[in-house]
This record gives sequence, C-alpha cells and structure tokens, in this order.
Amino acid sequence: MDDQDHPLTHQIVQAGPDALAEMLDLERLETDFFRGTYVLEEPFPFYGGQVLAQALVAAGRTVDPDRHVHSLHAYFLRPGDAKQPTVFQVFRDRDGRSYSARRVVAIQNGQVILNLSSSFSIGSTGPDLVDVAMPQVSGPTRPYQRFHRLFSFEGALTETDVTPLSRPDRFWLRCVADLGEDPLLHAAALTYGSDISSGLVRLHGPEGRRGPSLDHAVWFHEPVRADGWLLQDMRPERTGAGRGLYSGHIFTQDGRLVATFSQESLFGAPRR
Amino acid sequence: MDDQDHPLTHQIVQAGPDALAEMLDLERLETDFFRGTYVLEEPFPFYGGQVLAQALVAAGRTVDPDRHVHSLHAYFLRPGDAKQPTVFQVFRDRDGRSYSARRVVAIQNGQVILNLSSSFSIGSTGPDLVDVAMPQVSGPTRPYQRFHRLFSFEGALTETDVTPLSRPDRFWLRCVADLGEDPLLHAAALTYGSDISSGLVRLHGPEGRRGPSLDHAVWFHEPVRADGWLLQDMRPERTGAGRGLYSGHIFTQDGRLVATFSQESLFGAPRR
Repeated sequence: MDDQDHPLTHQIVQAGPDALAEMLDLERLETDFFRGTYVLEEPFPFYGGQVLAQALVAAGRTVDPDRHVHSLHAYFLRPGDAKQPTVFQVFRDRDGRSYSARRVVAIQNGQVILNLSSSFSIGSTGPDLVDVAMPQVSGPTRPYQRFHRLFSFEGALTETDVTPLSRPDRFWLRCVADLGEDPLLHAAALTYGSDISSGLVRLHGPEGRRGPSLDHAVWFHEPVRADGWLLQDMRPERTGAGRGLYSGHIFTQDGRLVATFSQESLFGAPRR
Repeated sequence: MDDQDHPLTHQIVQAGPDALAEMLDLERLETDFFRGTYVLEEPFPFYGGQVLAQALVAAGRTVDPDRHVHSLHAYFLRPGDAKQPTVFQVFRDRDGRSYSARRVVAIQNGQVILNLSSSFSIGSTGPDLVDVAMPQVSGPTRPYQRFHRLFSFEGALTETDVTPLSRPDRFWLRCVADLGEDPLLHAAALTYGSDISSGLVRLHGPEGRRGPSLDHAVWFHEPVRADGWLLQDMRPERTGAGRGLYSGHIFTQDGRLVATFSQESLFGAPRR
C-alpha cells in the first residue's frame, strides 16, 4: 500500500514515561468512531496490549462515565502495523438501567485486526466474597526491567520467583504514566499490562515456543488504580493442538483480588 | 408487539429426547444469516445456553468444516423470548491459513440479545501439557434429574457432592440427543451444558442470590463427544458489586481436561 494513502494525521514519537497515557488519548472522529494516532518511531513490534487497551477506551468513551468497565473479551486477529494509526468502530449493543454493552472492531488497511466486547455497570451492592488466595510472596522490592514492550510500566520480581526469566509468570507491575483520575484509563492500563502473555512459563519453562496471543478476557472485580503496585499471578491450564491457555489473577499489595484474566496463545505452531 | 409481525415460520413443539439436536438445526436464510426456529410450547424461560449454542452453530456453518471451534466469548444482553424464533447474523472477521474468526449477533425484535465471538482452527501439533488435575470423584453412578432446563441431558452426582443441591457445582453430564458425527454440534452441546451457571455454590451456598448470566467463555482443548459422560467442575472466584465470577473445567471419564470455561452472572443485585 502506498504511503500516500495515509496522510499524516499523527506525530511519530519516542516512547517517554507518559507513553501509555498518550497512547490511550484517542481522537474522536465521529460519535462512534475513534482513531489511535500514537505511532512510535522506534521499531517495536505492535504489542497486542496496545490495540486492546485502546479498543477498551473507545468502548468506554461511548458509555456514561458513571458506568465502569467490569469485563472485556477480545480476539487478536491480525498482527497490526505499529507505524500507522488504527481506527476503532463502536457498536452500541445495549444501554440498560445499570449495564451497558459495547462491541468494538479495530481496523487497519480495511481489515479487522482486533474485535472486543465489553460490559459496563454503574455498580451495585452485593455480597463481597473471595475464593482465591493471594500467593505468599514478598513485596515489590526487586526492580525488574525486562518488559521492553510495556511502555510506562516498571516491574518487580518477588522472592519466590524462579531465576529471573525473560518472562516470569508472577511479578509486580506499576504504571508510571500520569493517568489522572479517570477509572477507564486505569482499567485500560491494567488490561495493557495483563497482555504480557507469560502465563505458560510454569508449564513449559522459559524456552517454550509461545506464539502470538489469540484472545484475552479480563474481569474487573472492583475499580483499581494502575499506578499502585499490582501483583500479576498467572497459572497455565493446558497446551495442545498448537495452542496454550492460561489464567491469571491480579492483587493489590494489601491482598485484594481486583481482576481475573485468561488468555490463549499459539504454542508450538509456526503460523496461523 | 403484535403477533402478526411474526408470521408462523416455525412449529411449536414439546421437548423430547432429541430437543437439543432439533434446536441446533438452524435454518439458513442467506449466506451469513440463520434462524433458530425451535420454539417450545412449554412455558420454560429462555435458557441462555440455547441462544449461545445456536450462535456457535451459526458461526461454525460459515467456516470450512475442517476448522473446529477452539474458543468462544459471548455476552448475554437481553433475556430473549423462548416463544419466538431468533435470527443470527454472522460477520466474517478473518479467514487465515489455519484459523478463522467469526462474530455473531443474535437478534429478536430488532434488538441484540446475545453477541458471540469465536475462533476456529484446522488444528496443529504442539506439546500436550496439562496443569489442571481432575478432582478425585466417583463416576456417574447417582442419577440426577434436577436440571430442568437442560433438554436432552442426563446428569449424575459424584459421591463427593454435598447434599444434593438444586444446583450442584460439580456433576456429570451426558447428552442423550442424537448429535451424529458433526464436531460442531458436540461442541455446541458441551457449551449448552456449561451454561448451567451454578459455579458460585461453593462460595455462597445454595441460597445465594444468583441472577442472570452476563457473559460466557469456553476454550475447547480438543474435540470431544458430548454424548459421553463429562465431569463439569466449577470453582468460584469472587463476588462483589452485584456480580459473581466463576471458572470451570470439563473432564472426560478417563481424566482428560477437554474444556475450560468462565462465566460472570448477576449476584445479589435485583436488575440490570
């Protein structure tokens, strides 16, 4: 495709500490159309968490701000091109008394690169019961810098981590970008960080042939700030037929289970 | 809405042993449009698993039969009317070398009652590793008849079930309908059975105020026959803010983990 097909609607930048905040600041093209114009000059591959978090923001921008995201489900369909903007089209499936549902497709070059469904709620009261125990680990005291593609995040290992792998499956994460007070941006940042996709390490070891992500689901149990330390703990379920599935939990430092997520990726298969 | 708006395109029936097979036999209206015409004369509420399983069949009918479903994600958006047909519109997001992705919306009275995204694969080879142990339970020897809304299924309790609850969270299920050899119908039947929504029992007890399902996700680790006994084991994650999330695993009698699923439902909140 000729570059002339894409007039320069965006500024190519270098990733700074506020990269994630800039990335999530979508341009509104029309009521239900948005454009992500954050394009890096550095040659990073297109991290799936970026288009995923942007799609969530697009959905949330069409919902009453009193309604907060409580879950999302998405499929990664094509790799996408990090050097060009992405257009997001939102479909308003439902606006009920206290819940709203949205679908989003992310488009590049006329093709859907990601679809996302998400649900928002004004919240309600109900029993607060938890059946998932936080693992016994030390706090975020061992700085960890290897998540090269997670812009605006700092990481820390726990003392129960095994030898530092390039992708541990349990670690602390904190967003250093200024996300302000908008709960949608904090949920998007949590989502972005949860797509690091290392949940199969315990099953296959660091050399496992994990490929691109296929899908992603997140359930937000309560509003959470992504600029505080969060423990991300992933557990493999099964690999087979060229795929692998893991599930994960996210805890605050004081032990609250704030999110649950699941992701399937290619595993041991060369292509899709 | 006036009944005259719906000319009788369907036959109202009583549920027999093959109810599920008849329910999944969709009428093809156009290349990517289908209609579920199975309408019961009995006054059962619209079981979400029905429209969910039908949506999966609609998606699968637009995919090369060599590609088998390996995951689905869906939102239940409106209760639906069991007394009228449902139209399914399929969107072909992607057909790659070995994976196909589809979106489906289920429509009644001009409104989306369910959206579903699903992915299909021709399968591949890769390491076969499992990190989820089958619970130690007895086989399907104690017949159980209380799943009134699960047409074409018989159930059995395990000896480790607690006092028979109206909705146990661990049980054996088997489809008695003649599904033939089509793997899509067996996957749809498994999906239908997995929406029984009793995965919060261990957390809140049988009297918990569980409401309608909000979403559902299923990962199919390998092809499986739904007419063999399958152990469905559900575990609560968390309730709060008027919702509750659980996850589940499905095993064959010889201990193979064949599917993983998750579902969030209303919990303790009166309405959505």
